[in-house]
Order: sequence, then structure tokens, then C-alpha cells
Amino acid sequence: MRAARLHEYTDDMSNGLSIDEVDKPQVQHSDDVIVEVEGAGWCQTDNHIIEGMWEQYVPQPLPMTLGHENAGTVVEVGEEVQLVSEGDQVICHPVQTCGTCRPCRQGETMYCENDAFNGLTTDGGFADELHTSERSVIPLPDSIDPADIAPHADAGITAYHAAKKAVAGLNPGDAAVVIGIGGLGHIGLQCVDSMSAADIIAVDVKQSARDLADELGAHYTVDPKSENVADAIGDITDGTGAAQVLDFVGADETTALAPDICAAGGDHHIIGYGGHIHEPAQALVNGEFSFVGNIVGRYAELQELVALVEREAVDLHTTRYDLGDINEVAEKLEHGEIEGRAVITP
Amino acid sequence: MRAARLHEYTDDMSNGLSIDEVDKPQVQHSDDVIVEVEGAGWCQTDNHIIEGMWEQYVPQPLPMTLGHENAGTVVEVGEEVQLVSEGDQVICHPVQTCGTCRPCRQGETMYCENDAFNGLTTDGGFADELHTSERSVIPLPDSIDPADIAPHADAGITAYHAAKKAVAGLNPGDAAVVIGIGGLGHIGLQCVDSMSAADIIAVDVKQSARDLADELGAHYTVDPKSENVADAIGDITDGTGAAQVLDFVGADETTALAPDICAAGGDHHIIGYGGHIHEPAQALVNGEFSFVGNIVGRYAELQELVALVEREAVDLHTTRYDLGDINEVAEKLEHGEIEGRAVITP
Amino acid sequence: MRAARLHEYTDDMSNGLSIDEVDKPQVQHSDDVIVEVEGAGWCQTDNHIIEGMWEQYVPQPLPMTLGHENAGTVVEVGEEVQLVSEGDQVICHPVQTCGTCRPCRQGETMYCENDAFNGLTTDGGFADELHTSERSVIPLPDSIDPADIAPHADAGITAYHAAKKAVAGLNPGDAAVVIGIGGLGHIGLQCVDSMSAADIIAVDVKQSARDLADELGAHYTVDPKSENVADAIGDITDGTGAAQVLDFVGADETTALAPDICAAGGDHHIIGYGGHIHEPAQALVNGEFSFVGNIVGRYAELQELVALVEREAVDLHTTRYDLGDINEVAEKLEHGEIEGRAVITP
Amino acid sequence: MRAARLHEYTDDMSNGLSIDEVDKPQVQHSDDVIVEVEGAGWCQTDNHIIEGMWEQYVPQPLPMTLGHENAGTVVEVGEEVQLVSEGDQVICHPVQTCGTCRPCRQGETMYCENDAFNGLTTDGGFADELHTSERSVIPLPDSIDPADIAPHADAGITAYHAAKKAVAGLNPGDAAVVIGIGGLGHIGLQCVDSMSAADIIAVDVKQSARDLADELGAHYTVDPKSENVADAIGDITDGTGAAQVLDFVGADETTALAPDICAAGGDHHIIGYGGHIHEPAQALVNGEFSFVGNIVGRYAELQELVALVEREAVDLHTTRYDLGDINEVAEKLEHGEIEGRAVITP
Repeated sequence: MRAARLHEYTDDMSNGLSIDEVDKPQVQHSDDVIVEVEGAGWCQTDNHIIEGMWEQYVPQPLPMTLGHENAGTVVEVGEEVQLVSEGDQVICHPVQTCGTCRPCRQGETMYCENDAFNGLTTDGGFADELHTSERSVIPLPDSIDPADIAPHADAGITAYHAAKKAVAGLNPGDAAVVIGIGGLGHIGLQCVDSMSAADIIAVDVKQSARDLADELGAHYTVDPKSENVADAIGDITDGTGAAQVLDFVGADETTALAPDICAAGGDHHIIGYGGHIHEPAQALVNGEFSFVGNIVGRYAELQELVALVEREAVDLHTTRYDLGDINEVAEKLEHGEIEGRAVITP
Repeated sequence: MRAARLHEYTDDMSNGLSIDEVDKPQVQHSDDVIVEVEGAGWCQTDNHIIEGMWEQYVPQPLPMTLGHENAGTVVEVGEEVQLVSEGDQVICHPVQTCGTCRPCRQGETMYCENDAFNGLTTDGGFADELHTSERSVIPLPDSIDPADIAPHADAGITAYHAAKKAVAGLNPGDAAVVIGIGGLGHIGLQCVDSMSAADIIAVDVKQSARDLADELGAHYTVDPKSENVADAIGDITDGTGAAQVLDFVGADETTALAPDICAAGGDHHIIGYGGHIHEPAQALVNGEFSFVGNIVGRYAELQELVALVEREAVDLHTTRYDLGDINEVAEKLEHGEIEGRAVITP
Repeated sequence: MRAARLHEYTDDMSNGLSIDEVDKPQVQHSDDVIVEVEGAGWCQTDNHIIEGMWEQYVPQPLPMTLGHENAGTVVEVGEEVQLVSEGDQVICHPVQTCGTCRPCRQGETMYCENDAFNGLTTDGGFADELHTSERSVIPLPDSIDPADIAPHADAGITAYHAAKKAVAGLNPGDAAVVIGIGGLGHIGLQCVDSMSAADIIAVDVKQSARDLADELGAHYTVDPKSENVADAIGDITDGTGAAQVLDFVGADETTALAPDICAAGGDHHIIGYGGHIHEPAQALVNGEFSFVGNIVGRYAELQELVALVEREAVDLHTTRYDLGDINEVAEKLEHGEIEGRAVITP
Repeated sequence: MRAARLHEYTDDMSNGLSIDEVDKPQVQHSDDVIVEVEGAGWCQTDNHIIEGMWEQYVPQPLPMTLGHENAGTVVEVGEEVQLVSEGDQVICHPVQTCGTCRPCRQGETMYCENDAFNGLTTDGGFADELHTSERSVIPLPDSIDPADIAPHADAGITAYHAAKKAVAGLNPGDAAVVIGIGGLGHIGLQCVDSMSAADIIAVDVKQSARDLADELGAHYTVDPKSENVADAIGDITDGTGAAQVLDFVGADETTALAPDICAAGGDHHIIGYGGHIHEPAQALVNGEFSFVGNIVGRYAELQELVALVEREAVDLHTTRYDLGDINEVAEKLEHGEIEGRAVITP
């Protein structure tokens, strides 16, 4: 079968992956599930992987098939699989988990001590078929096209996960700031809106992104190019600041906003990455705010996100591309030329 | 009366404050309370105030009487005060609050929108008498000597506040790291121990501090001079890391430990300050840990700490000094020569 | 001024209160606030008070002016009041609190140890003027007519309070059951809807109430007269049950539904009252559900509800009556003939 | 092998179970685990099962081998089991879970939709060997004798589970009431003590039980035969009541205490059962307390309890009996003649 594989780290996105012919995956364990991939979202993290940014954090044997946002149809299952059978439509949580370590027992599947991450530490789904397990698939209703929902497997639950944590700290009358209305941010904004009665302030340098935010339910938009973001948020919140900030950019300039835009006791969620936090400890003491890390979301959170999709609370903006166009997609994203989310349809 | 006042910012601790003769405070509002100060703890923050480190964060009219850790006896009350009367022993929460802003209504007295902070934004208690209000005093049982408990007014509740937040994330079998077993840290360690069944790992460069930690209930101690802290914590926790870290130092080197010592989903509490956080956003994403700011504690938390003191769960190590020796105390603390907490007894 | 007062307990609603001429309230303390009442909601609890149902629970000196859902305009304030001044529009939280007991310090104003409850333990607002305090009034924007919002002072925050507790246990895909879509229930339903993405199932014996539920956002309605409620909820939730049940009726038959309609780990919130809970302890063990008591809501929650009203998330159905018609209102409510909420406009 | 089996429901405990000769269990699935039973605790629930009290709540095919508190040594494992191997000492969580339903994914293993409960819905461990699965065993350190720890598999985690929920609502200075210092209660008391700084009030009719409570850390004891329980608790708490009540009895008289002993906002945890709750809904409204159901504890909680045992925070009082004496044990418990916990050693 065809698979888009990374052979060596590079900064040249035009030539990052090669389309190889490889063996189809086989059922090896009693709970294995093989999925024919119908949609595989392309993610900023794929660019970061190609650049080698994850090499120091996780084991990453090359060559590797990338692709961690997959959905499709089950084509084969191990002999003890109960949850799905051949022909079922599924979305694939990117993390394959053991189910028996303490984090799995606690429902913290993202902290599995024996995990494999599709397209990051094991072969992913920019391919005709994906090898995963019963613990990592969620059945989809027939009404949903797998290619439409695929990006929720990572972009979606990452945004949802952060939104859910934020919502726990949002009362009516509080403000939530969403920084970066891109692939993840436009989902996060809708999740916050559907699960809280907070006032949402969307911050983005692009007019089209701010327009999208408006359309999706933002109560205010701020353009960092023409306004001082901290001043604008101060005005909107009568000087209180935002109870929750969701930073889908994670650049030096966006993390630096925290002391000036977080309300006392508030959280600045780090979801996007690429930049750094540079902050005097005293700033966190004085404002009693926190920088809160966020990594993808749990299996159960992907179930909840699918429920949000079923009730049409979350619109996903996607464009489809062939597997052969994969490096072109990488380059476009690098230059900020993808609106919403690109989905590869092998 | 006598009052130790700051006239201008300086790095010379030997000459930071001057003992001035000033008017006694007077009752002006219906809920005012005047306290004869019997104990006033000296805090690292007093050194920071003298150096001018708080000037950019809060309004600070000079000259000002410092001192925010006070306890003593009520000598006069406003006409509508119900909680205390002349002759009652009290400990004074350092923040005077309005009781009518939204944070006060929520019990978040540290976020009061109309607050005054003793010795930081209004005259404090390195003086014969302190002007405060009914909303900021807590009656003490006769069995407690105000001079013994005074440092709990700030060192105590700051440590307690962080410990209480940490305890919410600590199950039996989890590890809690306490960095810096000084004036605050030795209280924080005892609070964690009395409110959880976590394994406590104390980290300090001083042998005497590690000995104190041992005595107060630490299960493990680590010496950063002779051991790699991250490796030591990794060994103790079987590679999982610590669910909660309480950083009472807040230096560049201690905040930098976070990615290597926090368990997935864990918190690195910033309580001490002076240094910075420098961290790639990706580290917070990969480890899903948080840097959590902490500022002092709420009024209700000081009540809870007094309850801990009454059940003898928290030992406070103090040495008493005369008001006239105040600059000597400042200098000793600057050079790390104060064990436990210095208490001025005007 | 005129005041509708209860002189003795009676089951005869047609003659429960008498319109007396009494002295106007006077400012006595530094934080007193006198409000000219423009709207005073009539509540099922007023009927219960007239019947003597609260006599055993709280001190209740007769004669007493009833009325705990008040809004109007400030006409006089004590000399230290900062929050409002003459001419300001306000809604009045029904509980007057001390601000200095431990519950008040924690923000748990409903548990104030020195409270007075308008129209229950002290004179209320079925009168031309109401005596209250700075700690119990919330300024209203000019755009809101006090008579429109008055019932939120009790019906509103009671419903909001329960809804907020329920929302903390509701994930997307979970079901919330609202039993009784009357004066409180129709508010609670909207609160749950605006703060969560749960599926809402409204249960009411009246067609008009179910129609209202539909209109206000219920996803399903159940008629206990024609359907088995437990079966209907089982069908809707695939046998899982409802994560949260808000019982605005509190009759024997509605509390008896709990074991059959609550999901494992779920809550059956008791808001309405009049009936009893009769349940084997084993039922709570087997299903691990809880019966959760609810009393009115905190001051801060009324602020949050006003924020919901400002964003038009909560419609309140009211009909206005003159003070002289007050016993007629009591009788109509007794016979279930009030749609939405009756508001007395003195 | 030998197995103590229930053939029909009876109130005659002297003859409840018969010792039958049955086939040894066999590995059938890839994750099966067969354990040689070294200790099997006898529980009040075993008496209730014999009486038929659980027939209406769960499917219960007879004859069935009872016994849900088991520990021993692994003798055989399925081919994909990773967590344990032959010869490992383990404690057996009583619930066998699927690992793939939504509750399992959330860590709520007690709510597993495809569960089997040892000795309640499938054969248990009053036998030479027990058939269970990888998801239901926890490895024990060599230093622990399985027969000593066996009762923790149910009595222990049930008490721990309730204690953990209670501890989340206990601040220093708050009171926790423990009703019934028997097999579960004496564990629960120690769990509360090790995880909180609350004042513990133990209530029991037996002098020996109150003495045990004293020894294990209770701060106060109350004898319902000679004191009015509500008055005694009122005196101890200055009229506030207890923030948390753990009712290990669950009789009509103990649940009836709730309105008089629970603090505002407090919880009355139902752990023991046999009696009923009879309470006007108005009582829950007026006091805003809750009746909180509790069923056993999650797998992860049993890990936490094992951690408590390892740090010697929980003493378990046990007496050992032969398998042949099993009906004698049932009868003794029925008559309140078992101190601590009886453990069958097959």
C-alpha cells in the first residue's frame, strides 16, 4: 500500500515526505484493529516533526509514516475485539494505550506509560491503512463522513481538552480570550461557546480569521496589529482581565501577554508551541495566574467531542487533498496559506 | 509611638528602615480595629520592598511603616465592630478588604479590588500599634502567644495556601517535592504532611534545612550540591515524577527543574520569587505540567491555619528581636543567617 | 407606607396577608440601604410560609411583611455605603449577611451565621419600601426594568444555583433531566442550556409547560401522565440514565424516580419541596447516586445570573399584579393557575 | 477444588453455603489471570447476598461461589498478560471490567457496563482458586502477606472511596463524623485521618468499638446509648455541625441524624445499608446537605489504598478461619460477634 514517510529531518517542507510502497498492516494481537483511512488531517505538528522538533522529547524511529488525525472504516479486527467489527466507521484517537498502567486506569489515557502515538512514535495514517487497537477507536454514526471529521482526532480533541479545562473556570460574566483562530483555535472557540456562558474575545492578526471568529460566536475580536491587546482586553473586562486565556499560538509575544491579560487566579493555557515563556516568577506571584500545559485530549474527551459534532455545535472548516499532494500541503501551512484544516484522502 | 519606616529604596539592608516617632493610629470608620503589636514577623518580601522590587506592581507611597505579619491585642474598635473587642488577642491578615467587591463576595479576599496591604501599600506593623479593620483580624485562643504565631499572618498562610492547592492533586502514593525548607518552606512541608498521605521529598542546599525537613516529616531529602535533583526524584518516583512541586525559592535554577521533575498533569507552584521562568512552550505541552502562581492566602485560609496550629500540626521556628534591631535582621536574612523566622517584638 | 403582612398561619390563601399601613424603614447602620420596591415576585415559598411550613426551621416573628424577590430604586443609604447611591436601580438578594462570619468569608453567603432573610425572618418587600444593606444589593444596568427582573432575586438564583452545581457534572453527550417547568424550572432549564452542551429532558404533567420547555431549548419532553418517566429516560439515554436531575417539584413521586433515572455517580438535586424522600439506603449504594439539597444561591451567583440576563440567555415569564391583589395571587398559585412568575408592583 | 457455594437464598446463616467440589478455573482469554486464593475476607454483604437482598439489583445465577475480598498468588495467565506472571502476589479488585466501555475509559471502573462482580454476579474466592483478569489484579510487595490484606479488596476500598470523597470537603477545623467503627468504619476512620486534618468524631454503640476508634486516631467518641448524638456533635462543633458524615451503618436511625448533624453544604455518605432514608425534601433544602451514595471503589483507588498500607497508615484488624468454618463466620457476624474482619484462608 502507499504511505507518506519521513526518512530524515529537514526544514525543506517541499520535500519532507516521500510516498513509499509498503506492506499492509496485519492483525497481531487479540485487540488489534486495522482501519482503511478515508481522511487524515494535516497538522502544524507534522511540520514540527519533519523539522525534528520532537526528536528530543519522544523516541522516533525513521523512516516513519506520519499522520495522527485519522478516520475511516474498519477492515479487520483481532479475535477478542468487541467494540467494532469490519465495516464500521471510526475515528482514531492518535494514542494507542495499554489499558493497564495506572494512568490508563485513571482515565488519563494521554499519560499511558506504554503508549504509541500514531505518526509520532509509530506509523500513522497518511497511508491506505492504519494499524491501531480497540482501545483507540470510536464508532461514528453513519451520518458522519470520516473525511469530514478526521481532524478532530487531534486538532479537535486538543482544542476540546483545553476548552474543557478552561470552562471549569468560567462563570457567566467572565471573559475567555482565544488567541489564534486557526486549525485548532476555531474549534476551541466553539467548544468554549457551547459549554459556557463566558464572553469570548478572539485575537488574531488575520482579518479572515477574525471574521471567522465573529461568525462562530466570538463576542469581541482584537487585531494585535492595530490595537494593544492588553489595553483592549482591559477595556472589555473593566480592568479585571480574562479568567481564562487559550493560547493556540504559543509564541514569545503571546505568552508574554499573560501577566497583563489574565485575571487574578486565571489561567493562560499553552496549546500552541514554537516560542518560549520568559517571565519573572514575581509576575506569577503578584497576579496569581498560571501557565497551564495542554497535550491532546483523553479518549473519553474524543467521545465528548463527537457528541458535540453530532449536535452540530462544532463546525470544522476543511479542504481535501490527495495523498500525492502532501508536501504541497506542508508548504502551504508553513506559509499560513491553509484556511481551516487540510485533510488528506488516501 | 515608634514605627520602623522606609524612606527610600536601597540595596543597603544595614540602613533600610529608620525608627521614627509617629502619631498613634485612630479609629475613623465603623469597622476599624486598632491592635497593639506584640509580634511582627520579618519576611524576605520586606527585603524585596526595601530594594524597590514591588514598586512596579503596586502603589507604594513613602515613607511607609513596613511589617505585614502581625499579631497582638485589640486596643480600640469602631462602633459597629462585632467580632472582637478591646483586650482580645488577634492575628492580623495582611490584607484589609472591602467586603463588597465581587472577589470579596466570592471569598477570594486576596483579589479584593479595594484592598490595602499592610506594610506594602499602607502602614504596617513594625510599630507599637497597627490600624486595621474587623474584616482582617482573627481572634486567637488565650493559649497562643501572639508573638509566637505572628509569622503565620503571611509566611504561614502563603505556605498553607500553596499547600492546600497542592494537596487537592495528591493521592496516596504520589510524591510532593518541597524546594527550599526556609521560613515558608518548613511550614508548607508540615501543611502538606498533615493534609495528605503523599510522599514528601525535601530539596535544600543547606544540611541544617534538610535536617529540619527530616524532623518535620519529609520522607526523602535531596541535596542539589551533591545530587542531580531530577535524577534523584526520578529514582524515588520510579520515573513518574512528582504530582506536585512547591517551589519556595523561585530562582532560575529551581523553575528550570519543572519539565524534568513534574509528573504528567502535575503542577510546579511558584511561591518564592526573585528568579525567572525560561521554558519552551513545547515543554509544557509535552509534559502537560503547569506553572502555578501563588500569592499569600485568603482570610478563611488563615482561620484554617490557626486550626492547624491549635492541633499542633505546624511547628513554627522563630527568634525574637527588638524593634531597634530591625536593620540587623534584614541584613542577616539577606545573608541566609536566619533560621526559621525572625519576629520583631515592639 | 403599605405592607402586605402575615399575622397568623393559615391554609386559607384567599385571606393570608393583610395590607397594613406601617412606618417607613429608616437607615440605622453605616451600611444600610433603603429601596423603593418596584417589583416583588410571588413565590411558592410564600404560600408555604403562610401555611406555617417554615416555622420549625427558622425564627419567624409575626406579624411580618412577606416578599423575598425584590428589585427597585435606592432611596437612602448609610454613611459608609460605597457600592450604590440614591437613584440607583438594584436587585435585592433575599439574604442580608454579616460579612464577617466564616461562611461569609468563604463566599458562602447563604450560610451566614448572622443572616436575616427578607420576608422569612425579617420584613420583606411586599411593601412600598424595603430595608436591606450594601452587602445585599446588586446594581442593575439602566436597560433592565426592576419589575421584570425581580423574581430572579429568589426563583432565579435558586434555579441558577442548582443548575451551576449540575453543570459541573455534565459533559457533552450526557443527559440532564429537569422536572417541573414552572416558575423556577423554566429558568433552571435555560441556565443548564446556556452553560453546558448536555441533552436536556424536560418532564412536566402540563402540556403548556412542556411546550414552554420546547421553546426554551429542551431536546426532549416527557409527559408523566402518558409515559413511564424512567422508561422514557432509559430510552433516550441508551440505558445509562441522566448524569444530573434537577427536581423542581420535590414530591414523593419525583424523588422516587432517582434510582431509576440517575446514571451511576449522578445527582438528583432537590430544589422543590413539599414531599419526602423514602428510599432504601441500598438503592443509593447500588446506583451510587446522591440526593443533593439546594437552598437559594449566593450573592456572587446572583451577579452571574444578572450577567446571563444581560446577554439575553434567560427569558423570564412574568405577569404583574397590584399589591392589593396579593391574596388572589396566592390562591391562583395554589391552584396552579399562574404561568411563569407573578410580580407584585407596589 | 473446594468452593463455598450458595444454592438458595436463606435467612439461616448457620447453613447458608455448602462446601462443594468443583472444577478448577481455566484460562480462556488472552488477559485471564488465575489466582490461588490465600485470603478471602467475609463481608456483611455476603450475609445480605445469602438473604437474597441483591437479587433485585443484579443478575445472580445460583449456585454461585461467594467471596469478593481476595488476595493470593498468580498460578496461570493468558498469553497477552503483561502486568503479572506466575508466582506474583496480588490483591484482586472484586470487579472484573472490560476496559473499553465509556466508564472504564473515564477510570470509573465501578460503573463498567460489562462488569462481573466476584461472588455477586460471577464465582468468587471462597475457593482454592479464582478466575479473574489482568485488569482486576494489583501486584503486592513481598513484604505483605495476602491473607492480611485481603479484606481491603472490598471493605478497604469501599471505606477508602467514601473517605476520599469526604476528604475533598474537609478543611482543618472542620469535623468528620464516622458512624459505626466496624469492619469498614475502622478503615474509613484511618483513611480520613491520614488524608486530612479534620477533627474526627466516632459514633458507635459498643464500648470496644469506641476504644478502637480512640486508639486509631478519633478526636472524640460518642455513645448513642448514653448521649444524644446530635447534641454531642453540636457541642463539639460549636453548633456548626459536621462538614462530612460517613455512615457505615445505614440504618433508619443513622440516616435520620443527617439534618441535625450535617453542616450547611455538608454530605451524609451512605456506605452501610439495610435501613432506609425517610426525610422531607424541605430538610435537604433548608440545610443544603446531601445524601451521597457510595459503592466500593475504583481500581485506581485500590492502588492508593495499597500505598496507604505500605506506609503503615491503615491497620486492619483480622481473624483467620478455615474454609470449613464459613457458615460459623456468617452467623457470628450476624450476631455482631466478629471484631474487625474475618478472613477465610482456603
